[in-house]
Amino acid sequence: MVNKQLLDPQSIVVVGGSDDIQKPGGKVLKNLIDCGYKGKIFVVNPKLDEVQGVKAYRDVSELPQVDLAIMAIAAKFCPATVETLTKEKNTRAFIILSAGFHEESEAGGKLEQQIVDSINAVNGCLIGPNCIGMMNANYAGVFTTPIPTFDPKGIDFISGSGATAVFIMEAGIPKGLTFNSVYSVGNSAQMGVEDVLKYLDETYDPKTSSPIKLLYVESVNKPDLLLKHASSLIRKGCKIAAIKSGSSAAGSRAASSHTGAMASPDVAVEALFRKAGIVRCGGREELATVASIFMHPELKGKNIAIITHAGGPAVMLTDALSNNGLDVPHIEGPKASALLEKLFAGSSVANPIDFLATGTAEHLGLIIDACENDFDNVDAMAVIFGSPGLCPVYDVYDLLHEKMKSCKKPIYPILPSVINVKDEIAHFLAKGRVNFPDEVVFGNALAKVYHTPKPMPEVAELPTVDVKAIRKVIDGVDNGYLSPEAVQELLDAAGITRAGEAVVTSREEAVKAAGKLGYPVVMKVVGPVHKSDVGGVVLNVRDAETAAREFDRMITIKDTTAILLQPMLSGVELFVGAKREDKFGHLVLCGLGGIFIEVLHDVKAGIAPISVAEASTFIKSLKSYKILEGVRGQEPVNQELFAEMVSRVSALVTVAPEIFEMDLNPLLGRKDRVVAVDARIRIEK
Amino acid sequence: MVNKQLLDPQSIVVVGGSDDIQKPGGKVLKNLIDCGYKGKIFVVNPKLDEVQGVKAYRDVSELPQVDLAIMAIAAKFCPATVETLTKEKNTRAFIILSAGFHEESEAGGKLEQQIVDSINAVNGCLIGPNCIGMMNANYAGVFTTPIPTFDPKGIDFISGSGATAVFIMEAGIPKGLTFNSVYSVGNSAQMGVEDVLKYLDETYDPKTSSPIKLLYVESVNKPDLLLKHASSLIRKGCKIAAIKSGSSAAGSRAASSHTGAMASPDVAVEALFRKAGIVRCGGREELATVASIFMHPELKGKNIAIITHAGGPAVMLTDALSNNGLDVPHIEGPKASALLEKLFAGSSVANPIDFLATGTAEHLGLIIDACENDFDNVDAMAVIFGSPGLCPVYDVYDLLHEKMKSCKKPIYPILPSVINVKDEIAHFLAKGRVNFPDEVVFGNALAKVYHTPKPMPEVAELPTVDVKAIRKVIDGVDNGYLSPEAVQELLDAAGITRAGEAVVTSREEAVKAAGKLGYPVVMKVVGPVHKSDVGGVVLNVRDAETAAREFDRMITIKDTTAILLQPMLSGVELFVGAKREDKFGHLVLCGLGGIFIEVLHDVKAGIAPISVAEASTFIKSLKSYKILEGVRGQEPVNQELFAEMVSRVSALVTVAPEIFEMDLNPLLGRKDRVVAVDARIRIEK
Repeated sequence: MVNKQLLDPQSIVVVGGSDDIQKPGGKVLKNLIDCGYKGKIFVVNPKLDEVQGVKAYRDVSELPQVDLAIMAIAAKFCPATVETLTKEKNTRAFIILSAGFHEESEAGGKLEQQIVDSINAVNGCLIGPNCIGMMNANYAGVFTTPIPTFDPKGIDFISGSGATAVFIMEAGIPKGLTFNSVYSVGNSAQMGVEDVLKYLDETYDPKTSSPIKLLYVESVNKPDLLLKHASSLIRKGCKIAAIKSGSSAAGSRAASSHTGAMASPDVAVEALFRKAGIVRCGGREELATVASIFMHPELKGKNIAIITHAGGPAVMLTDALSNNGLDVPHIEGPKASALLEKLFAGSSVANPIDFLATGTAEHLGLIIDACENDFDNVDAMAVIFGSPGLCPVYDVYDLLHEKMKSCKKPIYPILPSVINVKDEIAHFLAKGRVNFPDEVVFGNALAKVYHTPKPMPEVAELPTVDVKAIRKVIDGVDNGYLSPEAVQELLDAAGITRAGEAVVTSREEAVKAAGKLGYPVVMKVVGPVHKSDVGGVVLNVRDAETAAREFDRMITIKDTTAILLQPMLSGVELFVGAKREDKFGHLVLCGLGGIFIEVLHDVKAGIAPISVAEASTFIKSLKSYKILEGVRGQEPVNQELFAEMVSRVSALVTVAPEIFEMDLNPLLGRKDRVVAVDARIRIEK
Repeated sequence: MVNKQLLDPQSIVVVGGSDDIQKPGGKVLKNLIDCGYKGKIFVVNPKLDEVQGVKAYRDVSELPQVDLAIMAIAAKFCPATVETLTKEKNTRAFIILSAGFHEESEAGGKLEQQIVDSINAVNGCLIGPNCIGMMNANYAGVFTTPIPTFDPKGIDFISGSGATAVFIMEAGIPKGLTFNSVYSVGNSAQMGVEDVLKYLDETYDPKTSSPIKLLYVESVNKPDLLLKHASSLIRKGCKIAAIKSGSSAAGSRAASSHTGAMASPDVAVEALFRKAGIVRCGGREELATVASIFMHPELKGKNIAIITHAGGPAVMLTDALSNNGLDVPHIEGPKASALLEKLFAGSSVANPIDFLATGTAEHLGLIIDACENDFDNVDAMAVIFGSPGLCPVYDVYDLLHEKMKSCKKPIYPILPSVINVKDEIAHFLAKGRVNFPDEVVFGNALAKVYHTPKPMPEVAELPTVDVKAIRKVIDGVDNGYLSPEAVQELLDAAGITRAGEAVVTSREEAVKAAGKLGYPVVMKVVGPVHKSDVGGVVLNVRDAETAAREFDRMITIKDTTAILLQPMLSGVELFVGAKREDKFGHLVLCGLGGIFIEVLHDVKAGIAPISVAEASTFIKSLKSYKILEGVRGQEPVNQELFAEMVSRVSALVTVAPEIFEMDLNPLLGRKDRVVAVDARIRIEK
């Protein structure tokens, strides 16, 4: 719904523009003028003929035709103004800064809806209301500062909060971040963060579009849209980082208290970001650092050369990288020795490459060339160069800039002396570069970027399931927990291996079934939800006599309608579950069972549908993964089969979205089989 | 060894002072002059009579008496110069900036030793060589910038690296950090970080001394000194934070490559910091943030009120605090309602307390007063106040400053608009305040400070052990693994409960012993180190016939000298170990056994001696702690007894430092007993 009038308006009217630049209406006008907007500017002000040197009209009806309206008038006046502009002035883009809409009251919500209806009627677009506005290289349609430097390859930044957008820019601009566009969506009456992202995806041109997107989101309202367009953009070569605040229970309350939006459950957000390939950040500083990393060539491997003129920061960076799964590989051999000979005595090239406090720009150039051309085990360079304040370092930073232009491997500049060589750093940033002032903040962020998986393929390959059989069961049952028979049918239809079993209602049947399954067997009551708690599970029943005796006892347990018999199996206890999450579809969870879930919370979750390949990545990222490989002489678990079970559960809930929650707990895993021993499925249509 | 001449010299000579302020000798002189040193300054320069307006002497021999010498001349000239100054000029303090000593060559090491000997001979003190110098409110004896603001209650900062000290100050000064003293110890020829800390401890006066210490350490050379004086200072009311770089294996290599010092093993460092109560930081940004927290009253509880005029940062801070174990408690009740009525419509006081973008300084004052006086479930306030750039906010920051003076609860100012209200923030900092520009960085640091335990008592209360019996065993054995009998004697002497056992060398003895211990028993070979691997462990031997048959088989296993029998016990597998670490004494480790050590690396370590109380804190901080409390119907483990076993192991290695490593693995824990089932002890005298 973003249109040309919003992105590149030929004329703009500020409705409510004034001379008071401490008010939004005055300040947005000032920003338009100061930033050199090239089109025509009009102002509507009921009392003045000229505002800030711009011709003012007393009423919108007097205006000539105008592409974009930026409105800073009381909410109650907005609907009529929008109506006039759309109908009489051919205005097709609106930025409404004013508050007092649905975020404040029900009456405000109605005003908001009227505005949206008017704009939709002419296929126009709306940013806001209750926002700081938007800006790009064409115009600064915001009432706030700072106005960043615009650059076609700078960041496209979409924020669900205006103040937070300001603070994020204030964190990023001193580091050298430049922008291509900034959208503050406010109440998202017509367009939210996801809708703007959709537009950026659908119009993406690798030659002219910016490849970097940053998002600040307090509530994921359209997860399907976010997943689709974020992953699509990343597949096209973009990089996306986002803050989704409200990750803690208390944080969710904080988010809802101020936006009125129920925060999306965080596990689902985490799973969505991972599936889409979005780098999730926890705060502004981290987001700005990740964005700074995005402004460099992609890191293609985990081996980092640290080039430094001071030991301490190099050691701290080595720690940060190594402790986060990146490598600072040892560098040696004839080419390393040749490099060492060209440096001052006492230098080291072992990595960190330390060319000493006295090292020169020329030395730095030699080292970078060697890392670029000679050292195959180097994927990127981090150059640390500050200053004790004795001499200017323009020559060093100029050389760094030139090398960054010519080298294929990414070079990350860590320039810690933000006081001593402030001017030199400003000079460096003015060339379009960024600076990482803290090596540890940089190292942690680099590892996070590197470890964020690529987006999953658009279409997940799923194992074949018997859709007809599944639908038949689902369509025939009521809400609530399914009977063992229905569970069996669903598992069979989904191709989920389960323990052989029999459900019996008489002592004779019990003995017969046990004999057929083969002793020892397990007997469980059918009916009670928490079977163990009521004495409804007996393991290791070894003979007919015991089976008969236990049947007689168990059938009398409250709520028991029948007895389930299964062969007694062994293996590592595994867990697969699924849960429907509002708006997100189904989350599918997997892990080891027992204490691993209960005590260690070692579970991974993904959003259905989940291919076997995606499930494998979950399994491999479990903290207890090594147990699946077999430790202490235990048999390993067949990981392919485990992953297949996860994928089959996802296929089942995809076909049967009426499943509200289900779990296979435990599955027993061995090297030749993974078998569901107990399953619960709850339907909520 | 720090003396008055170093701290408050009446006269200073810069040996090697010059007019070239891009060289250390010129720059240090300029710093002395520019910072208004009030004593006499002399210069020694072989070619000039006046340098930077200061009278220069051609040779040190021509100088008058002088308290402190700052030396910036080639290493080879230093020993003679020091000799002359100590013997003829009564100079008792030296700062040697020059490099070219033991960090460079063996010959340099000899020069360094000559200097130390000369200075020690007159009971003088030496900072360096190979350092940037030192500074305090009396003089700026460094050749670097920036020179921070000095304040008697500012930070005492001791750094093992000069360049890193500069970069740490550059990270901290923009946040508002002020200093009381800065020491860069360089090669630590006479005084290292630990020695300076010792001096600060021994001269600590709660009225006049600064309570904040920061350390940057690349190598802990005197762990005993560091532990003693850091914990002593903290007990006196100080707060200490430190970076110990080289925490990763690669980082250790990086550290050693540039300092020539072997990095101390990181687990020991971690244990030492925890025992001392030092807040360990990973980087400069974190260190500066922790130091900023130190500049506020101590946080006495975990409940934080977040006061904000913008939603986003409040939500992110709530997440950061909650995810790190602090609370943002719900605020409600009549007093909350009364407060809400005084704020603009749409505000929230539920916590975060959001008084909206339009909220005023007056509103902020009302909120702070309510948090200070009315809300008992608030221990501290974090005030977030930035600006979109419309109006100045001096009034808000002035009010904040006044409230911070009058309130007892800590108030942390989070002022994100480092661009929009740069001047207001500078004005606020000029009053001696600090700023936390990023709420998440702040939240993470606050949680780290809050969760750092208090120092352990100076004297650890240890369980009584039979010292005489322990020494008798230790004195009588050779290096290597102890025999089962010796292990038994040591465990008994240390009061460590062990399974009853018998060591036998004949089939008859085996059958007899098994009967006496009570079936079922476990049989293990004595001799082979990895018993399981050679088939040398048999569990659950239920009768005499099996015992006899297994004896016959096991006694023929290679290296087997005897067979050990124990009763078959059950319980949760626990682990206690000890290992001697160079310089640190013994590390004692504990955790759950089996996969918890091998797969999940869930182990805590402390430095001996360890009281039962300290051991309890380790046990409670295990990730698998809940298992000790009993889960899934399992019997809980007696934690007091487990802690006692840890403490007894620490008592044993304290009495017998010849123990190089030992482990009790497993101990079997139940609610009534914790019994060592297998133990290995290796001696290295």
